[in-house]
Amino acid sequence: MPDQLYQHFRKFIDISEEDFRLMLPFFRTLELRKKENLLQEGQLCRTNYFVLKGCLRMFFITDKGQEQTTQFAIENWWLSDYQAFQQQKEATFSIQAVEPSRVLAIDFRAQEELLKAFPAMEHYFRMVYQTAFAASQMRIKYLYGLSREEMYFHFIEQYPGFVQRIPQYLLASFLGFTPEYLSELRSRKRS
Amino acid sequence: MPDQLYQHFRKFIDISEEDFRLMLPFFRTLELRKKENLLQEGQLCRTNYFVLKGCLRMFFITDKGQEQTTQFAIENWWLSDYQAFQQQKEATFSIQAVEPSRVLAIDFRAQEELLKAFPAMEHYFRMVYQTAFAASQMRIKYLYGLSREEMYFHFIEQYPGFVQRIPQYLLASFLGFTPEYLSELRSRKRS
Repeated sequence: MPDQLYQHFRKFIDISEEDFRLMLPFFRTLELRKKENLLQEGQLCRTNYFVLKGCLRMFFITDKGQEQTTQFAIENWWLSDYQAFQQQKEATFSIQAVEPSRVLAIDFRAQEELLKAFPAMEHYFRMVYQTAFAASQMRIKYLYGLSREEMYFHFIEQYPGFVQRIPQYLLASFLGFTPEYLSELRSRKRS
Repeated sequence: MPDQLYQHFRKFIDISEEDFRLMLPFFRTLELRKKENLLQEGQLCRTNYFVLKGCLRMFFITDKGQEQTTQFAIENWWLSDYQAFQQQKEATFSIQAVEPSRVLAIDFRAQEELLKAFPAMEHYFRMVYQTAFAASQMRIKYLYGLSREEMYFHFIEQYPGFVQRIPQYLLASFLGFTPEYLSELRSRKRS
């Protein structure tokens, strides 16, 4: 039983172990290799993912044919292309495992059924999305207000463990600069 | 009775007129003059706003002392500094009326009580935040993937009425360029 999901639910809602056991059939557990794709741009986006272990990233392909990472998800984060998920249409992002990962997957219809069967889960997902939206308001603020360099220093201050963990070329892409410039910033920080 | 809010609730939840009447005391109606402030950076963020008529914008002050608009809200949109609202702490954004506006205001505690008294409202707010988060994932994609010029043309294509409505210097700030450059783009579009 993924006790970790139960603990995450219990952060927000009062739920019995018995009810939680009844919820489990709504989810599938997936084991992912490093760089394994969960979703590809253009595919129907059917599924919402909860990271039990590991790290996912969401990205799109730019006009220049490069992968641009826009979001990461580590343990206890949900991730999907939510516009596509909500409307059950083609994804405009891809999702890939950054490292070997274990995730829980719930399909759109299963999630709708889960919410009908356990209305307390509306509160849980309300809190998940409210928190995610609040974080994205701050993210947009930083994208406007900080230089790329300031973003880097802000990021390593807020998520020191995370920066150790993800490959530097992905961090560079996420922050919008070249791996070379990232090395330069890293050495500047050390000096 | 703000019938408009009732209709917006009914887009997502099944709710009787009687229940809706019981909800109204949780809200206050505010009439705002153009440029009137609802929230100022540094103030405790107590309130969530629903636009009945008019237009709000959210902005912050950059290091250079300039106002940077990050978000607009027109009829039937909710707006707050959600990180500050959720944690009941000081706002890192300001909110101001762009034009004379009528909004419904609900304080944090009133919203919590409303959600306890009417659990169906959890579904309503889950959908509101899910939709807002989905839109912000797309927004972040455009901030990474489009040039400022492409953002402008994308924006006028998606929200033609909106572009007519808001002052051009605010649109320029939102899109991250000078009013002069915006005029240049506008004339390029006409030619």
